[in-house]
Amino acid sequence: MRIAAYPGSFDPVTNGHIDVIKRSLKLFDKVIVLVGDNPQKAPLFSHKERVDMIKESLKGIKHVEVKHFEGLLLEEVKKRNAKVIIRGLRAVSDFEFEFQRALLNREMDEDIETVFIMTKDNYIFLNSSIVKEIAMFGGSVKDFVPENVERKLREKFENL
Amino acid sequence: MRIAAYPGSFDPVTNGHIDVIKRSLKLFDKVIVLVGDNPQKAPLFSHKERVDMIKESLKGIKHVEVKHFEGLLLEEVKKRNAKVIIRGLRAVSDFEFEFQRALLNREMDEDIETVFIMTKDNYIFLNSSIVKEIAMFGGSVKDFVPENVERKLREKFENL
Amino acid sequence: MRIAAYPGSFDPVTNGHIDVIKRSLKLFDKVIVLVGDNPQKAPLFSHKERVDMIKESLKGIKHVEVKHFEGLLLEEVKKRNAKVIIRGLRAVSDFEFEFQRALLNREMDEDIETVFIMTKDNYIFLNSSIVKEIAMFGGSVKDFVPENVERKLREKFENL
Amino acid sequence: MRIAAYPGSFDPVTNGHIDVIKRSLKLFDKVIVLVGDNPQKAPLFSHKERVDMIKESLKGIKHVEVKHFEGLLLEEVKKRNAKVIIRGLRAVSDFEFEFQRALLNREMDEDIETVFIMTKDNYIFLNSSIVKEIAMFGGSVKDFVPENVERKLREKFENL
Amino acid sequence: MRIAAYPGSFDPVTNGHIDVIKRSLKLFDKVIVLVGDNPQKAPLFSHKERVDMIKESLKGIKHVEVKHFEGLLLEEVKKRNAKVIIRGLRAVSDFEFEFQRALLNREMDEDIETVFIMTKDNYIFLNSSIVKEIAMFGGSVKDFVPENVERKLREKFENL
Amino acid sequence: MRIAAYPGSFDPVTNGHIDVIKRSLKLFDKVIVLVGDNPQKAPLFSHKERVDMIKESLKGIKHVEVKHFEGLLLEEVKKRNAKVIIRGLRAVSDFEFEFQRALLNREMDEDIETVFIMTKDNYIFLNSSIVKEIAMFGGSVKDFVPENVERKLREKFENL
Repeated sequence: MRIAAYPGSFDPVTNGHIDVIKRSLKLFDKVIVLVGDNPQKAPLFSHKERVDMIKESLKGIKHVEVKHFEGLLLEEVKKRNAKVIIRGLRAVSDFEFEFQRALLNREMDEDIETVFIMTKDNYIFLNSSIVKEIAMFGGSVKDFVPENVERKLREKFENL
Repeated sequence: MRIAAYPGSFDPVTNGHIDVIKRSLKLFDKVIVLVGDNPQKAPLFSHKERVDMIKESLKGIKHVEVKHFEGLLLEEVKKRNAKVIIRGLRAVSDFEFEFQRALLNREMDEDIETVFIMTKDNYIFLNSSIVKEIAMFGGSVKDFVPENVERKLREKFENL
Repeated sequence: MRIAAYPGSFDPVTNGHIDVIKRSLKLFDKVIVLVGDNPQKAPLFSHKERVDMIKESLKGIKHVEVKHFEGLLLEEVKKRNAKVIIRGLRAVSDFEFEFQRALLNREMDEDIETVFIMTKDNYIFLNSSIVKEIAMFGGSVKDFVPENVERKLREKFENL
Repeated sequence: MRIAAYPGSFDPVTNGHIDVIKRSLKLFDKVIVLVGDNPQKAPLFSHKERVDMIKESLKGIKHVEVKHFEGLLLEEVKKRNAKVIIRGLRAVSDFEFEFQRALLNREMDEDIETVFIMTKDNYIFLNSSIVKEIAMFGGSVKDFVPENVERKLREKFENL
Repeated sequence: MRIAAYPGSFDPVTNGHIDVIKRSLKLFDKVIVLVGDNPQKAPLFSHKERVDMIKESLKGIKHVEVKHFEGLLLEEVKKRNAKVIIRGLRAVSDFEFEFQRALLNREMDEDIETVFIMTKDNYIFLNSSIVKEIAMFGGSVKDFVPENVERKLREKFENL
Repeated sequence: MRIAAYPGSFDPVTNGHIDVIKRSLKLFDKVIVLVGDNPQKAPLFSHKERVDMIKESLKGIKHVEVKHFEGLLLEEVKKRNAKVIIRGLRAVSDFEFEFQRALLNREMDEDIETVFIMTKDNYIFLNSSIVKEIAMFGGSVKDFVPENVERKLREKFENL
C-alpha cells in the first residue's frame, strides 16, 4: 500500500488544498493530511479547528486521514509509514521554496520522495493568507474555500 | 473619463512611485493614489504623513488625487469609479506577487483591469524598505526620494 | 485620443490574444494590432493570412485596426501616432523577455510607454506554438483559437 | 494497477533521466518511458537508437517499458492506460515550461494527472544538450550518462 | 592587495558560508567576514557568539578576518579598504534580492564591485533558517554546519 | 598572478561586455577575453572580425588579451593558466543558464571558479541579438555598442 503525506499549516484549508488532496487520492492508496504549525507565524485557527475544518470538508471521501503533528515533518512521515510527501505548486516562487525543502528532505532521508502536483489554474492566485485578508475586510470568500470554512472565517472575524 | 487607481502603502513614497504616477498620467485621464496599510507590517509614517508626503511631492501636477483607504482595495476602486488598477513592476519577484493579486482581483470583479507599468531602469533596486534602512543608518537617500520625503525621514530617525 | 499598438507575430492569433485586445479596448480609445515577422522563425501563415484571420476574429468590434508592418516596431508605432505599446503577460519567462524589450524601447524613445496586461488565467498555458503543435498532430484546438483560425489550421495541415 | 508515462526525447538518456525513472518506480506499479521527437529539433540519435540505449541502461529493472511514439502525447498516454505523466524538474525555467504543458494537458484531458519529481541535486546542471556538446568537443561525459550511452556518443562523434 | 568583504548575519554560519569563504580566498588576497544584524529579525545568537563560531570554524585558515559591524555596509567596506563585496548565490530568489542590493550599492559607490560566487550544489537547499528549524525540532544538522556550530545549536535549544 | 577568462561569442561585442571587462580588470591581474562559437547559431561576424572588434574597442587598455578558441571552454581556460571564469549577469534567465553552466564546469574541474559580475543597470536590456536586430532594421545602435562596432554593423547590413 502506497501512503502519501500532504503537510501544511492549512490556516484555513482552501479549495486549492482540497483539489490537491482529491488529485492525490487518484495517485496513491491513502493520503494523510498533516496539519503542522509554522514556527514563524501565529495561526488564526487552533490546530484542532484546522484539523476539524479539513475533516468536515472531506466528509464522505475515503482513504484520507487528517492529523495534527509537531516536530520534524520527516519523522512524522516515517512514523505514519508514508513514502511520499505531496506538495502543491502554483507559481515560480512556490517552486523555489519547495525545491529547496525537497532537496533538504532527500538529504535527510533518501527513501522519502517528494512529489509535486499542480493546483487547478483557477486556484493559481489562491492561498490561505489572501483568504484571511479578504475575510478580515468583510469580502466574500465563498469561491475560494469550502462552505464550512467560510462560516468559520465569518465567525472568527465577527468575534475579533 | 478613464480613472486609474494606484494603490500602495507608500511608506514613504519613492522616486520610483513618482515615476509610475507621472507615466500613468500620460495614459489615463485621472490617477487616484490610494494609500493603504499593509496588515502585516506597522508603518514608519502615519497614513496622514504618507498622504501628505505624496501630495507635496506631486504639487502642481494635475489630474491626480491622493487618498487614504481602509478595507478591500476593490471596493475602494469601485467607489472611486476607477476601472483600472496600476501596478509598478521592477523585478521577477514583484511580477509573481502582482500577477497573483491581479488574478484574484479579476476573479472578484471582471470589470476592473490591472495594468502593469515599468519603473525606470535606474529605479529597479528601489523600494520603500531599502530607503528606510539606508536612512536609519544615516546614509543619504537624496537620489531615491523627493526632497520633502528625505527631510521627513531625517526628522523621523533623529527622533527615534 | 489615446492610441495603443499591440504588436506580435500572431502565427496564428489565439483566444489569449483576442482576450488582450478586448481588454485593451476598455483602456484606450483605439487599438492597432501590428502583425510583424519574427526574424528568427519562418511563419506557418503568410502575413496576409495572419492579418485576415485577426480581422475576421474581431469582426464587428469597433476602434480596432489590424496592420502588417516591417522594420523597427518603434518607428511603426510612432508612424501610427500610438503612444502606448501593449504586451500580454502569462508567465515569468514572458515577463523577463518583455521587461528587457520594454527597457530597450524606452531607451530608444522616452515618449512611448509599454503597458502590460494579463491574459485570463485559463489562457496561461496558451501560445501560438503550442496551438500549431497540437493541430499538426491532429488534436483539437477549438478551445484555444477562434473558429475561423481552427478551420485555417486544419486546411494548412491537411495540405502539408 | 497505476501506470505512469515518462515522456521525453532522450537524445540521449542521461543519469538524470535514469534517476527519475528509478524514483518513479517506487511510486507507481509500472512506468512506460515514451520516446518522442521534438518537432523543432533534429535528433542526434535515431528513435530506435534512443529506445535501445534506454533499454540497455535499464537492463534487469522490472516494471518498466520503453516505447517510441508519434503524434499527440495525451493520445499515447491514454492508449497505454497510463493515468499519470511524470516530469523531472531541475530548475525554474524547467518549471515554467512544464507548468504550462501540464495546464494544457489537464485542459485537454481532466483525467490525466501530471506529477513532478526532482532529479538528484548533482544532476541539476545536466541535460541531453550539454552532454552532446561536451562529447562533440571530445570531453568526458562518463559521470553524466550510463556507460553504454557514453560509448555510443563516442562512436557517433568519431564518425562525424 | 585586493581585499574582499563577505557580509551576512551568519545566525549561525553554515557549511555553505564556509564553502564560499574558502572559494573567495582563492580569488582575493584577503577576505573580511562582516557579521551584521538583520534589522527585521532578532538573531538566535548574539553577535559575539556568531563571530566566535565563524572564527572557530576557520581556525588555521589564513588571510581571513571576522568582524562585527553596525550601520551601513558600504561604509564598513570602505573603512576596511575592501573593493569587493562577495555574495553567495544558491537560487533564483537569492539572485533577485542580491541583484537589487548590488545595483543599490553600485549606485551609492561606483568603486565597490559586487561579485557573486556559487555555493556547492549540495548546499543549494541550505540556509541558516532551515538549520535553526531542524535543530529546534531535535533533528540532526551535522551535515550542514561545522561541528562547533552543531554543539552550540544543541546547547541553545536545550536551554530554551 | 590571478588570471581570469571571460568567454562568449561576442557577435558583436556590446557596451555591456566592455563594462564587464573593465570591472573585471579591477578584480584580477589579467583578463583573457575568449571568443568562441555557439554550436547552435551561425554568427553574423567571422571569429576574426569578432576578435578584432573587441581588440579595437579595448585599445590602450592594459592587462587584457583577446583570443579565439575552439573546443571545450574548460580546456582553453586551463591552457591559459586562468583560475577564474567571469560571467556577466543581467537577468533571472541569464542567471539560471549561467548557474547550470557553472555547476557543470565545477563538476568537471573543481579548481576553476566561476564568478558573476553585474552589468550596469542601463545595460540590463542589452545583448548582441537585440543589437543585430535593431541594426538590421536600420535603427541606431550608437548607445549600445562601441563606435567601431557600430560602423561594422552598418557595413555588414548594407552589404546583405
